[in-house]
Amino acid sequence: MTLPPALLDQLAAIFGDRLSTAPAVREHHGKDESHFPPCPPDAVVFALSTADVVGAVKACAAHLVPVIAFGTGTSLEGHVAALKGGVCIDVAGMNSILSVRPEDLDVTIQPGVTRKQLNEHLRDSGLFFPIDPGADASLGGMAATRASGTNAVRYGTMRDNVLSLEVVLPDGRVIRTARRARKSSAGYDLTRLFVGSEGTLGIITELTLRLHGIPEAISAATCPFPSVEAAVETVILTIQSGIPVARIEFMDEVMADAVNRYSRTSHRVAPTLFFEFHGSPASVREQAERVEAIAAELGGDGFRWATGAEDRTRLWAARHNAYYAGVALRPGCRAWTTDTCVPISRLAECLLETKADLATSGLTSAVVGHVGDGNFHVMLLVDPNRPEEIAEAEALNRRIVHRALAMDGTCTGEHGIGHGKMEFLAAEFGDGLDIMRAIKTAIDPLGIMNPGKIVG
Amino acid sequence: MTLPPALLDQLAAIFGDRLSTAPAVREHHGKDESHFPPCPPDAVVFALSTADVVGAVKACAAHLVPVIAFGTGTSLEGHVAALKGGVCIDVAGMNSILSVRPEDLDVTIQPGVTRKQLNEHLRDSGLFFPIDPGADASLGGMAATRASGTNAVRYGTMRDNVLSLEVVLPDGRVIRTARRARKSSAGYDLTRLFVGSEGTLGIITELTLRLHGIPEAISAATCPFPSVEAAVETVILTIQSGIPVARIEFMDEVMADAVNRYSRTSHRVAPTLFFEFHGSPASVREQAERVEAIAAELGGDGFRWATGAEDRTRLWAARHNAYYAGVALRPGCRAWTTDTCVPISRLAECLLETKADLATSGLTSAVVGHVGDGNFHVMLLVDPNRPEEIAEAEALNRRIVHRALAMDGTCTGEHGIGHGKMEFLAAEFGDGLDIMRAIKTAIDPLGIMNPGKIVG
Repeated sequence: MTLPPALLDQLAAIFGDRLSTAPAVREHHGKDESHFPPCPPDAVVFALSTADVVGAVKACAAHLVPVIAFGTGTSLEGHVAALKGGVCIDVAGMNSILSVRPEDLDVTIQPGVTRKQLNEHLRDSGLFFPIDPGADASLGGMAATRASGTNAVRYGTMRDNVLSLEVVLPDGRVIRTARRARKSSAGYDLTRLFVGSEGTLGIITELTLRLHGIPEAISAATCPFPSVEAAVETVILTIQSGIPVARIEFMDEVMADAVNRYSRTSHRVAPTLFFEFHGSPASVREQAERVEAIAAELGGDGFRWATGAEDRTRLWAARHNAYYAGVALRPGCRAWTTDTCVPISRLAECLLETKADLATSGLTSAVVGHVGDGNFHVMLLVDPNRPEEIAEAEALNRRIVHRALAMDGTCTGEHGIGHGKMEFLAAEFGDGLDIMRAIKTAIDPLGIMNPGKIVG
Repeated sequence: MTLPPALLDQLAAIFGDRLSTAPAVREHHGKDESHFPPCPPDAVVFALSTADVVGAVKACAAHLVPVIAFGTGTSLEGHVAALKGGVCIDVAGMNSILSVRPEDLDVTIQPGVTRKQLNEHLRDSGLFFPIDPGADASLGGMAATRASGTNAVRYGTMRDNVLSLEVVLPDGRVIRTARRARKSSAGYDLTRLFVGSEGTLGIITELTLRLHGIPEAISAATCPFPSVEAAVETVILTIQSGIPVARIEFMDEVMADAVNRYSRTSHRVAPTLFFEFHGSPASVREQAERVEAIAAELGGDGFRWATGAEDRTRLWAARHNAYYAGVALRPGCRAWTTDTCVPISRLAECLLETKADLATSGLTSAVVGHVGDGNFHVMLLVDPNRPEEIAEAEALNRRIVHRALAMDGTCTGEHGIGHGKMEFLAAEFGDGLDIMRAIKTAIDPLGIMNPGKIVG
């Protein structure tokens, strides 16, 4: 679309040289880390305050022009693609940490603050923010996509760790979704409504997050297993025993090999679990002993411990770089990442059926998973210039999703819907999708907020 | 209102002798445990299945007649009052435990199952459901009001422990709000939307709940303190230290005295904390030692331990009977219970200002609190036949709520809005209340679901 000149004038009046229509800027803002082709907005504004966002939203609403929020562009389902053109509001510059309250274990920040920036800032306070999706994403984006990652098994997801949001509504009004009290039964849960709404109901301009004490003691370990079943059974028994493991991550033998090559590690080329334990020194020791005993019963015999901070950092860097390690398996390719999550009792079955399905495909693939939650990702490596590979990946993804749905799972554990997963919502929610549509229409009657995402 | 004869015929066809218009039955269903006068529905149907609920809702929708769900009638803000008449759907008979899945730590139940019934059923499985609002409420009602209680500081509230709901919508369609996966980023969070919606958006006909392992070791203790500040400071330091205390409850000196009289206990007549620790034997010991050290520094010197199951049961029975102990302070009176929740850093200030305010009033009052969450209740004992006492309680409650709001707290930590707290929502949410109204209108355009509650 071509933006109305009157709108561009209004935006220029608010943003000055923080308004851009340069092709490179637009291109950058229409693209995330997914395999989807870029879809640039018509203009980008760089917001520095809630007032900026209000100004942009009001101007766009008056001209019925779409508005798309942008943080770090690390989403994975085409969330930032300007499918119907419009104005991208880049909030990366809204990156102030407004207030840390150690006595309440919470913090108020602007949406462009990234998780690493926050934890760096908190370091001397003895507190940390646990949600860790791998990418150094903006916390506004993490809330908008209901992100989680490696620590979710113990600390929950963004759903559980957002206390309150400031949101600019589609008509430019500003609300706070909740007070700062730890719990409330006051009316509909607006916080949880906006967490995971992917910019389709409003734009997050401030977040109050729960913090956690940095554990007195931390230890981490890896352990190879003779089979996928043995690894998953270890996970199930660990969770069932109520051991408050902080992280329990899986990679298959392909990924173990890829990580070795990429990060110069020496994992046995086998299905492998990564563990991390948080607590007092005595409790960490106790947790570790119990898990090691469970693993040993199932044939996991090569526990390698990393107790020093540096060793642990190296271990988790290797895990976090699994995405890039996977991509490096086939240079020049892009990764198509699946994201299903199933009840943990079905996880081994789901993984095995999926791996058998992958084996029949010609595509290179590797598996990692936040298995304590039943969530795993298949990385499918596709050559973007070969449509038959894209089609093959699409077909595999579709089968993986329907397999998960048949096991009472979800099409996305943590990446969100964007436009990439919309086709699965009807199968997952039935008439519930109508309720989502009714909510969308009620809150955004003009349909200007990130159109073409979640409910279409 | 008088129900249309055609509607009564339709209901009779579905429910037979499970339809009642008897005054005593109607009276019972228009009344909860609050101080509000009863407001009976025009008819009551006793549902035994989702199909029954669908039939009743469809019939009522066709005649634009209000529908109010009823579980155990233990709500505290007039939630079940049939303010505009209509049909009450009693779901207490839908009390089957449909499926326990120890391997997934979850359970699927009908909404009339009560929390004690569920835990009794689970006893031999090694699992339990932690949410404990005191009353033996139905779990459907607990979800509908976003209940919590004494264990919330460790295990969260109903918000955190409902995995999925089956809901009958206002037009009679049935949806499931989520799959059984532990986490999901698929679309708007319908589960959290219906948790806390108090029957104003639909009727819960099935719940899938998270379960937790019964801890290997449990110990409980009480400790008196020289002042409210000392008790609250102990709470703050305990939470800040990351000690995973399972329960940390407060009662003031008036309540300690009342409990002694009612439950024949021998608490020192002083501000008192109740603790409970869950974990492995070593971890419970470690937690208890750390808390005892914190308390000792603040002048809490009379730790009394209850480690045996029987001793603990007695201790918590006394705490749970605090409501009745309070009521017994002034026979013939009713209790008006406040329910504010503030950030924990403001708790001592809030409690002290409130107690000073109470001291200027002629009403008998006592304080208990789930202080680990910043949530406390003032029980105001009023003679229902003396309008000036009702007016005094109303004024005190209003001041308590506005004090909490000024401290970034909420008007209700766990009881919900019903019709009793509606006047405070605008002050708490501003334009956010418009979003709640828009959602209500979108999902229940005929306005038949529990009208006059939350958004009016």
